[in-house]
Amino acid sequence: MRSQHRRWVLAGRPTALPEPAHFRLEDGPLPEPAEEQALIAVSHVSVDPGMRARLSGDSYAPALPLGAVIESAGVGHVIASRAPKLKEGDAVSGGFGWQSHVLTDGRGVSVIPDRPAFLPLTAYIGVLGIPGLTAFFGLTEIARLQAGDRLLVSSAAGPVGATAGQIGKLLGGTVAGIAGGPVKCAYLHEIGFDAAIDHRAGDLEAALRAACAEGVDVYFDNVGGTVLDAALSVMRPRGRIAVSGQVSEYNRSTPVGIRNTTRFIPQRLSMTGFVVYDFAKQFGAARAQMTSWIESGRLTYREELVAGLENAPAAFLGLFSGDAFGRRLISV
Amino acid sequence: MRSQHRRWVLAGRPTALPEPAHFRLEDGPLPEPAEEQALIAVSHVSVDPGMRARLSGDSYAPALPLGAVIESAGVGHVIASRAPKLKEGDAVSGGFGWQSHVLTDGRGVSVIPDRPAFLPLTAYIGVLGIPGLTAFFGLTEIARLQAGDRLLVSSAAGPVGATAGQIGKLLGGTVAGIAGGPVKCAYLHEIGFDAAIDHRAGDLEAALRAACAEGVDVYFDNVGGTVLDAALSVMRPRGRIAVSGQVSEYNRSTPVGIRNTTRFIPQRLSMTGFVVYDFAKQFGAARAQMTSWIESGRLTYREELVAGLENAPAAFLGLFSGDAFGRRLISV
Repeated sequence: MRSQHRRWVLAGRPTALPEPAHFRLEDGPLPEPAEEQALIAVSHVSVDPGMRARLSGDSYAPALPLGAVIESAGVGHVIASRAPKLKEGDAVSGGFGWQSHVLTDGRGVSVIPDRPAFLPLTAYIGVLGIPGLTAFFGLTEIARLQAGDRLLVSSAAGPVGATAGQIGKLLGGTVAGIAGGPVKCAYLHEIGFDAAIDHRAGDLEAALRAACAEGVDVYFDNVGGTVLDAALSVMRPRGRIAVSGQVSEYNRSTPVGIRNTTRFIPQRLSMTGFVVYDFAKQFGAARAQMTSWIESGRLTYREELVAGLENAPAAFLGLFSGDAFGRRLISV
Repeated sequence: MRSQHRRWVLAGRPTALPEPAHFRLEDGPLPEPAEEQALIAVSHVSVDPGMRARLSGDSYAPALPLGAVIESAGVGHVIASRAPKLKEGDAVSGGFGWQSHVLTDGRGVSVIPDRPAFLPLTAYIGVLGIPGLTAFFGLTEIARLQAGDRLLVSSAAGPVGATAGQIGKLLGGTVAGIAGGPVKCAYLHEIGFDAAIDHRAGDLEAALRAACAEGVDVYFDNVGGTVLDAALSVMRPRGRIAVSGQVSEYNRSTPVGIRNTTRFIPQRLSMTGFVVYDFAKQFGAARAQMTSWIESGRLTYREELVAGLENAPAAFLGLFSGDAFGRRLISV
């Protein structure tokens, strides 16, 4: 176990694609918990496209202060505690950030109770964490997917998209996914998607028209921009678009946006952005449902572990070139 | 009364702004009703931005055939009838098109019953017709405006926008309107808008931020494009956008679209296009409500009558340069 407190802090603000110089690795002494405090040894942290906004402090997200630890999800264990609700050995999850240890008063830290043997700790920041819950609530509460609906998912081999597609099937939908390259597309078929569209293979709108010949009732959007625009062209009447992410826009100083807005009126389309934390009171029920699907083998997930906290920035930057496959996590 | 059947037909397909050469005026003999038919003398027809789509046959609207009468709303009287449900002298409304007479089997023709003295016949294709009903259902069914909501309306001095703003006040909202020029803005104040924003006066986004300092819960959009984009920048959390029209886009071969899509997620915005005919079963109840508001002086409307069917194309084209004020109708 590491005897130093290692962490990545914000060293500069990216305006376009983040670069290594925007991050600084710091080592410091391991803190000692005071009364009411506990110390967590972090085992895994996440890299998420959604982390991008606070690095710049775009108009729609409060800026992360310079020098602050880069925010992320994390899991780990309590290694020392003087806090009433945490005890040594507890498995915990929370917004731990890119660091080896967290000194906490317990707020924002969840103890993971009674983890079934078939679930790794990392599932709690993956398929049962924000990515999986985003898929669940985007489909059930925002798009209100019904049995028989034709679902289209972008970034479909990613942790949100792959979960959304499988839940779409479990809810009785027909599911098509957009992903980059033949390997990811083969994976979509493997996990039960009815169709896979390779956005690197050429004219996306034409490919969507071919793969979704009957149109799309629900588009679960993780990408925004030109992919969203192409999806608009195949939406059926009363189609619903759940805007879960807009990864194609996060590194642009001038967003691309969409052109196909004239389809909203004749097709009666509805497009709704959402933040999964709004459904926090329902997380427990959703996790129970998803755990039972995982146990019965009907919901699968894929994790990619990058070894070493020192590799977190490179692993994060790779997300924007589409090099991730499944849930990418850093083993600290 | 005219003894010829005069009508405007489609002579060519506009790709950008329609021009006079796209329309052709034809005169022919007055038709005689056969059995089960009636002849209507049309007194007024409408010019609407929404008529633009079918002239080109854009992907989202079936094309009007070349040589067909230009479609529009109209009112008039039955002057001869062998149809069971229409009798001579009946006041009627329907999709009569730009023509002096309509030979009909009665389908799509509504008899206007028991018109109160305070309502001119033209109200049935204005404040009580598609423009007024679009305002009513866009606010009540699509945006679900609640008392206390902050409403923003574009093209607010137009027949849809002015009605939407007044209904917004009647439902307990605070209402700001966007219009072009000081005369229209003064009119908005006159009919009860709380704020008026002149889109010709410079930086629209800055003006919206000033006029809607507390943000906007409901944006009733008649315009699309850059105005919609500016409105997105002032939407409050859980804001709803009712897409009623996109007049700024109708004459573009390449739509402008919107850039501010990254606001959808953090602000939890929802944008929904609608077609008022979907609420046809509720038209009667809406007209009764609006008639009582008109009678009590709480809902006003403004009509601009252009004399002479021969002036219909010019009156229509003027809509796209913003020269209309209130409901523009042609007196045949």
